Parts: sequence; C-alpha cells; structure tokens
Amino acid sequence: MGKDLDAIEVHGYAAKDTTGQLVPFKFTCKQPSPEDVAFKVLYCGICHSDLHQIRNEWQNAKYPMVPGHEVIGTVTDVGSEVTKFKPGDTVGVGCMVMSCRNCDSCEKGLEQFCDKVVWTYNSELPDGTTTQGGYSSHIVANENYVLRIPDNLPKDAAAPLLCAGITVWSPMQYFGLNVKDAKFGVVGLGGLGHMAVKFAKAFGMHVTVFSTSPNKEKEARNILGADDFVVSKNEDAMNAKAKSIDFIIDTIAAKHELGPYLTTLKTNGKLCLVGMPEHALEVSPVQLVTGRKLVAGSLIGGIQETAEMLEFCGKNNISCMVETVPVSECNTAMERLAKNDVKYRFVLDMKNIA
Amino acid sequence: MGKDLDAIEVHGYAAKDTTGQLVPFKFTCKQPSPEDVAFKVLYCGICHSDLHQIRNEWQNAKYPMVPGHEVIGTVTDVGSEVTKFKPGDTVGVGCMVMSCRNCDSCEKGLEQFCDKVVWTYNSELPDGTTTQGGYSSHIVANENYVLRIPDNLPKDAAAPLLCAGITVWSPMQYFGLNVKDAKFGVVGLGGLGHMAVKFAKAFGMHVTVFSTSPNKEKEARNILGADDFVVSKNEDAMNAKAKSIDFIIDTIAAKHELGPYLTTLKTNGKLCLVGMPEHALEVSPVQLVTGRKLVAGSLIGGIQETAEMLEFCGKNNISCMVETVPVSECNTAMERLAKNDVKYRFVLDMKNIA
Repeated sequence: MGKDLDAIEVHGYAAKDTTGQLVPFKFTCKQPSPEDVAFKVLYCGICHSDLHQIRNEWQNAKYPMVPGHEVIGTVTDVGSEVTKFKPGDTVGVGCMVMSCRNCDSCEKGLEQFCDKVVWTYNSELPDGTTTQGGYSSHIVANENYVLRIPDNLPKDAAAPLLCAGITVWSPMQYFGLNVKDAKFGVVGLGGLGHMAVKFAKAFGMHVTVFSTSPNKEKEARNILGADDFVVSKNEDAMNAKAKSIDFIIDTIAAKHELGPYLTTLKTNGKLCLVGMPEHALEVSPVQLVTGRKLVAGSLIGGIQETAEMLEFCGKNNISCMVETVPVSECNTAMERLAKNDVKYRFVLDMKNIA
Repeated sequence: MGKDLDAIEVHGYAAKDTTGQLVPFKFTCKQPSPEDVAFKVLYCGICHSDLHQIRNEWQNAKYPMVPGHEVIGTVTDVGSEVTKFKPGDTVGVGCMVMSCRNCDSCEKGLEQFCDKVVWTYNSELPDGTTTQGGYSSHIVANENYVLRIPDNLPKDAAAPLLCAGITVWSPMQYFGLNVKDAKFGVVGLGGLGHMAVKFAKAFGMHVTVFSTSPNKEKEARNILGADDFVVSKNEDAMNAKAKSIDFIIDTIAAKHELGPYLTTLKTNGKLCLVGMPEHALEVSPVQLVTGRKLVAGSLIGGIQETAEMLEFCGKNNISCMVETVPVSECNTAMERLAKNDVKYRFVLDMKNIA
C-alpha cells in the first residue's frame, strides 16, 4: 500500500465481431488511479446479457469486447488513496465501475441510474478508455465500485450474486416484496429466478414458482425449497391461484402475457419486471384498478445495496447454483446458455487463463 | 332517535332501458334496519360511470335504475342503533352502501375491494333488494357507509368529492404521491383531473397538467393554480418534460399511449391509472426497468379514507368546480357530459323533485 499502481497486462477472452465467438485477447488495463484496486480474477459468471452484447444485439458493441460483470477475485495491489481494501482481500465487481458521484441518483445510492454510469465492459471511462470485463485475468477498478465478498461463500457460486443476485434483491427491498409469511411468486426459474426463490425463502415467505417447464418442479421444490409450482401454460392451474399471491418477480426476458399473473395477485398485489423484453407488454387497466395492483420494473441495484445483499448472503450462507467451467470453454458455455441449457448460471474459472 | 325507521316513498329519476333517457320514477326505499340513516337528498353529482351504467355499457344493468353515487343531504331520521348521526346532520353517500365487514379488505378499510361490496345503485343488498342511487329525493343507508360533510363546504360542490375526489385522493395517499415540492402530473383535466390538481396544490406540489385541449390552459393555470400545462399531442413539448415528473395521476378512460408519460417520469417515477380504459394499454418493460418506474391502478377509496379526505377538504376549503342544474334537466346534462361539455362536474339539485 502507499504506492501507485502499475498498468497491468491482462489476458482475456474477447469478442471481435458479431459472431458471438470469444477468442484469447491480450490488452493493457486502464491507467490506474490512486483510488484503484487491482485484483486477480478467480471466477466470472456468464450473464445472459453477455450473449446479447457480444453479438451486438443492443447495437452498441465496441470490439474487441471482453464481457463479464459478475467478477470475483483476490486483491493484488491497491492505490495510495485506497482505504477500504488491502492485498489478499476477496472482492468483486458487478455491473458498474464508475459513476458521477454527484447527481441525485448517485447521492441516493442509485448509481445504476446515473446518467454518467460506466458499465464494467463495453462502456467508456471519463478518459476515453473502453472498459473490459471479467472474462479475464485481472480487473482494476475504483475502490468505491469494488465489493467485499464474505469469506464463507464459495467464490464461484458467489460471483453471480453481483448481477443475478442484486437484480432480484433490489426490487424485493425497494418495492417491499420481502414480508415474512407473504405469498411470493417467481416467474421463470433461471439465473435470476432461482435467486429470487432463495431470497424469498430466507425472508420466510411462501414461494410459488411459475414456469413453462414441468420438469423443473422437482428441483424447485426439493432443492430450492419452493412451496408451490405452477405450470404457467396450464390455464386451470393458473386460475386456481387467482387472488392468492402478494408479490411477483417476473424474470422473463421475452414477450409474454402479464394478465394471467396479474390475476393471481391479491388486492394491492405487485408485479416487478426484472427481465427486459424488447417489445411492449399489454396491461389491462381494469386488472390494475380493480385490485389496486401495480406493474413495476427494476434494474440491478446500487453499490451500497449490493454490499448489504452480500453481507446478508454471508450471514445466511446464500449463494447461486452454478456450473463452473474453465474459461477456455466459454464458447461452449455460451452455446448452451443460448439454449437455456444451464442450472442456473455458468461461472468461468480463470485458473489457467495465461 | 331510538325508534325504528319507516320505509320511505322516494321520488327519483330512473333509466328504464338502454336508451340513456331518465324519467321520473317513484319507488319505496329498502326496508330500513336499526343501523340505518335516512336523509333527504339535496344534491347529487353526475359521474361519467352513471352514463355507462344507464346505457348498460357494462352489461350488468338492472332496470329501472336510479343512478347517482355522489349524494349529499340532510338527515331526517335515524334507526335505534345509530350512534354516529342525528337528524339535521349534513351527510353523504359515495359509491358503496354495504360490504361484508369481515374480510381482509373490510378489516383494512378497503371496502371497495370486498367481494360482497354493495354499490350505491344497480347492485343487490343481502336481502335481494336492488339499490337505487342519488338522483332521488331520499337515501336510506347503513350508518357505517354514511359520511359526515364539513359544514363550511358548499353542499353542491362537495358532492363530487364522494367519487371524483376520493378516486384521486386515495392513490395520492397510498402510492405516496403527496410529497411537498415534488413534481406532480395530471393527465386529463375533467372531473377527476381538476380535483387531483386541487389536492396536489394543497399538498404543496408543483403541478403540470397534460391535456389534449390547449384551450384548457388558461383555466388550469389561473383558476386551478397549475404551475405548468403541456399539450400532450405536442411531441416536442412532451419530450421537453423528459425525466422531470415524480408522480402522475392518469384520469383518461379511453385507450391511450402511456409511453410519452412514462418518459416524463424521473427515476422511481410512478403513474397511477384511475380511469378504466376497456382495452389493454401497452407498457414498455425497458421504460419501467431503466428508471425503476411503476404503473398502478386505484379504485375510489375506503370509507375511513373518504372521511379523512372530507375532513381535509373542510379544513382546507376544498371542493369541486361544478355546474349545478335542477334534477329535471338531468337528460340535458347527460347529453352534454357525453360530449365532455362540462366544467368540471354536473351536480343535480333535488329541490323540486317532488
């Protein structure tokens, strides 16, 4: 500590075009500042948005692009002004590595809504450097966007907490979907959905999983602890749940009907979207008005809130169910992810990256 | 007091078929119970839903139907068990005259969501009697659904508080759209909208009216005290309001675009529908998610909440802007209402009803 950091040579896997293929890629990390923390990456989760981004499906790809925003590792060095971390600490970086720290959103701990937020990859730092993500050997980031990872959590299974975890945690806090004994519904049992089940059970709620896949029932109940499972394509089963649920987290990223889920909500029921279907969804005003219901959306969570979630996960031994594979197999993992063939999150192991 | 009430012969105006025409109609009020209050009706507001109901547009009309659920009058008699009112009191009845008093909704003061709620007209009491509304000489109702009207309010202008008023008041309370100095938007400047402006100003908010009618600007600003006025069809004017509003009450009962209004909301912005367009409205998940916004609905308000609103109106001298006409002119009023030719609510004067 006390000295300034050197720029680091990083080994990563990058997309170089829209094919979705990742190839080994060497680059120099951004010019470190005195507030920066450098860490060796141990694991990085694969988020579905990584797939969208490397294929330029959001029309803003900057190539070469090293994806990854569920990054966990061990601090190797810290800048002279860093006060929160020291070498050897287990830390992580989620979706953001910088924001203006000055605006209304930043002051409220909602950095994700800052107009100047810098995302962990495929984004631009104030000095013009393009950020590169966690499918790589090292990350250098401002300490205010680095998070402490509780030592008792398995490091690979903790990585997806930094995006999948906080994405469902944050609306559960903000919209008050965390009331003991309340009836909680989760739509879609993937990376986000399985974390919503885990949190809801930790909050003492009664959890119903809605899924199009009947074959997910056993695991939902026996492994994740869901209390109920409804095949959402089964109209009778859906109608049988009418007016029975207090809150729903909807993780579906494709166009879908909200009506059947709004029907399952009690008076004052709340449904929060955390997926981002590209197209508009239809909402019946009569359904909202006659039950004082609401449909909301939520985007990841702020830094302080993520720290609180991680602390909760440490205390309650909560992490993700993951399939950990060597980073060299990232292309296979991406192909399987595109077919939803994963339970529930791939995590890349960086051990042999260079 | 102390004696039981006699059944009353009532003179009203009723629809007898779907033509929308109202004709004089004599009937006997429901069999009074010891908990009932009888009052002579002085004024009754005309709600847009009266028009839908008499024309059977909601497919549940029971004819003959005496509409009216914004009813104000003077107590003439009370049953032996009535404790809250005495002859001579100024009282009102809104949309409900009975509910189960036992369910979760009733226990929370949300009688409007009780499965057994009995509406003021075109609804059925437990004994099978069809309820008849306030376009009439007398109302007899259980004292728990009768409201005290502050003496300082003009009785005609107070009548629409019982539906138009509570319909906007309730979501402003429940969804927290009542924060001093917050930026508040009102979509549609009719019976509901003008009350939303009045309440928002009383709460110390900065109020923007969104309307398709440029000619409403002067009155919105000069009479109602709105701080800003935006012609909602003007795309540039709408875009200029991007991310500037905290809360919106949307009073439009026809199909309309929500996108432009969601764009005007800040992060954490809330839009509450109080109109009930028959068809679904489109909502963009991306708009909700990227600003943690919500779209909600709300239906009138509970009895206790209505009493609180009336007390607030008494203390702050708030009533509606009305056009008061003799009940004999109810058909003309209905015709004008159908063309939105009213500022902002018709109220029927029952003076010469029989």
